[in-house]
Amino acid sequence: MTHSLHAYALACRDAVATIASLDTVAKRRLLHRMADALAADEALVLDANTQDMKAAEANGTSTAMLDRLRLDPKRLDGIVAAVREVATLPDPVGLVTRRDTRPNGIEVERVRIPLGVIAMIYEARPNVTADAAALCLMAGNCTILRGGSDAMRSNLAIAASLKRALREEGLPEAAVTVIDDPRRETMVELLQLTDIVDLAIPRGGEGLIRFVAEHARVPVIKHYKGVCHLYVDSTADQALALDLLIDGKTSRPGVCNALETLLVHKDIAPSFVPKAVARLRERGVDVRGDATSQHLVADLAEATNDDYAAEFLDLVIALRVVDSIDDAITHIRRYGSDHTKVIATRDTATAEYFIRAIRSAVVMVNASSRFSDGGELGLGTEIGISTTRLHAYGPMGAESLTVERFVVRGTGQVRHPS
Amino acid sequence: MTHSLHAYALACRDAVATIASLDTVAKRRLLHRMADALAADEALVLDANTQDMKAAEANGTSTAMLDRLRLDPKRLDGIVAAVREVATLPDPVGLVTRRDTRPNGIEVERVRIPLGVIAMIYEARPNVTADAAALCLMAGNCTILRGGSDAMRSNLAIAASLKRALREEGLPEAAVTVIDDPRRETMVELLQLTDIVDLAIPRGGEGLIRFVAEHARVPVIKHYKGVCHLYVDSTADQALALDLLIDGKTSRPGVCNALETLLVHKDIAPSFVPKAVARLRERGVDVRGDATSQHLVADLAEATNDDYAAEFLDLVIALRVVDSIDDAITHIRRYGSDHTKVIATRDTATAEYFIRAIRSAVVMVNASSRFSDGGELGLGTEIGISTTRLHAYGPMGAESLTVERFVVRGTGQVRHPS
Repeated sequence: MTHSLHAYALACRDAVATIASLDTVAKRRLLHRMADALAADEALVLDANTQDMKAAEANGTSTAMLDRLRLDPKRLDGIVAAVREVATLPDPVGLVTRRDTRPNGIEVERVRIPLGVIAMIYEARPNVTADAAALCLMAGNCTILRGGSDAMRSNLAIAASLKRALREEGLPEAAVTVIDDPRRETMVELLQLTDIVDLAIPRGGEGLIRFVAEHARVPVIKHYKGVCHLYVDSTADQALALDLLIDGKTSRPGVCNALETLLVHKDIAPSFVPKAVARLRERGVDVRGDATSQHLVADLAEATNDDYAAEFLDLVIALRVVDSIDDAITHIRRYGSDHTKVIATRDTATAEYFIRAIRSAVVMVNASSRFSDGGELGLGTEIGISTTRLHAYGPMGAESLTVERFVVRGTGQVRHPS
Repeated sequence: MTHSLHAYALACRDAVATIASLDTVAKRRLLHRMADALAADEALVLDANTQDMKAAEANGTSTAMLDRLRLDPKRLDGIVAAVREVATLPDPVGLVTRRDTRPNGIEVERVRIPLGVIAMIYEARPNVTADAAALCLMAGNCTILRGGSDAMRSNLAIAASLKRALREEGLPEAAVTVIDDPRRETMVELLQLTDIVDLAIPRGGEGLIRFVAEHARVPVIKHYKGVCHLYVDSTADQALALDLLIDGKTSRPGVCNALETLLVHKDIAPSFVPKAVARLRERGVDVRGDATSQHLVADLAEATNDDYAAEFLDLVIALRVVDSIDDAITHIRRYGSDHTKVIATRDTATAEYFIRAIRSAVVMVNASSRFSDGGELGLGTEIGISTTRLHAYGPMGAESLTVERFVVRGTGQVRHPS
């Protein structure tokens, strides 16, 4: 298998020059062909997914994980639509981001180029297979996809459609390479192919990401957990705050931009907290609060420090009443991850103070945490949400899969004329 | 010492919020005060450097390393001027790089923020101490500086001036922190402080950089060696090509943007190679060539494969006659590092072909490789030259020490209205 991994990876590396040289029209045509292929193969993909789901259910997989794994016609339509949306994005490759003529007459350009080979390491979600391949291709990159064993049949079915589209366009199908060996030692080997892999992006649970960060010798962009907070300021519009709360917690609890903690300013807590808990409970949410909120609502379970640090990914929320916005900020610094933080407030100065003080990839004022997503923020689709403050921070789109180089044109200038 | 390192690093981390919140005026004032302090302390710094130089000479340090270590009034003036030039740069922090209103009305901004704590790991050059501190500060970052033992006295003298300026501005002097323990185990410890260090930038020999890449658990931007090439095309202006060659090889051979290999198209070789070798020899350069060039010039030493892969950092150059531009590109792919490649040509299409085909952070047409430098390319000064195709590729200025985050402002939008 070792030889097989290396052969697969080398074939992917060999496809880089071809893919990097494709012009925008060719890449768009390829992506539409991939979308067509996925749509045509709907029955095959859904059948493969049904087999994955049955096996996962038999293994006692959690509700949140099953939700991530599950495909249905609507979700597959969403995947196809996302591939087509990527095809409509501006091509980041070749973009001249700056142009400057220096005093000595040399012209300096900054030009975007592809990264090369991107290894995606992920767990349950089969949509990552199509999203990652499409975004990487639009940015001129090849991908090595190493998904979880739970989703193997789904991933291989999706990749088969994508590879057919590559062949039909006369392109090397190794540009999208799926590693079908789920063993950890094979992943470690992949993560140490420093001459082949330009970037590894792990997506999944904290355990997977820490494992990748520990073993990788190739560069890694980490996507740690999303412990997302809503802070309801004393000046908040309560109806608006309730809408953000219900949307953030209940519209899709199994994803990383779902809310996990609600912080409420003490001045608004007596009227807001009982309403918030009632609305959450109507939706079946298990609410766990601090002592102050327990005084405001009867039979409220106690929130532990572990609850405040948890990414529940389920219908559970931790609640705390805070004395001030600075207390909220301190709480978030202590327990939050660098993902998404939301403030509900009617005061602009308070909003700007929160924005500046919060260390987070995405900070929102009066908008749902569920918008923390590449598609919603205008990137087309996303390859993940970086919580590493390097290269990219927050949702990563096609442009995040390129880097700027320098192109200098002169007429014989030298630094020290002799 | 372990406790001391951790205490130093924590103090630096604690300075982040203060430094990140400085406005442009305050940062410029700080940098000018640092430049003033360095200029005022010239005698102290040069005296410390003299002691370092004497010790290094006694240790049998190479000419190239001594050149890197040496300060004199002119070079110190250059350091002071570089700090003042950083103060004139646009402040990258707070820059809104994109602003977009989504169909649902949320406003999405991309805003530049500092990275946080940057650890510089470097060897002989004491100017890195001032350059790195200044650039990091202009980008709102704090620095932990771990220089080589050869330059320790120089680095501490420079840092003392910088810290005095911080104190005079009422700012935490830990924002510039020098680690005075040269042991490797202390460096490893620093490189694994994942909760404190946001980025490590090693600058120095290949051994140091590989050591850092192997042991770091914090993100690293690698600055591998500069094996820079000049390719002289069949259409080149020969006088121009000779100027690029002499400037690239001899104006400062001990630096990473010096030329190490000359590739010459076979059609121009009979007239160009003898002139090139003669000019190089006039400047004392040891020229080593392939069989074809040995036919063109009597008593030319043979170039080995090791010579083609070498970063000589000295008055030595490897020479090869190639059959075509594609041969030149293949040679560069095999032996070059992702630093700087130059083509001399009068043909625009050839130039553009070279630009697209070459995998290198900086690619130049008819200009000296010695311009591959942050100052020369318009970044003010530089913190290094990235050969990693992630985050930054090529010379890194202040903007490379920031990252973009997302700021979203809404009026109560939710993703799934109930």
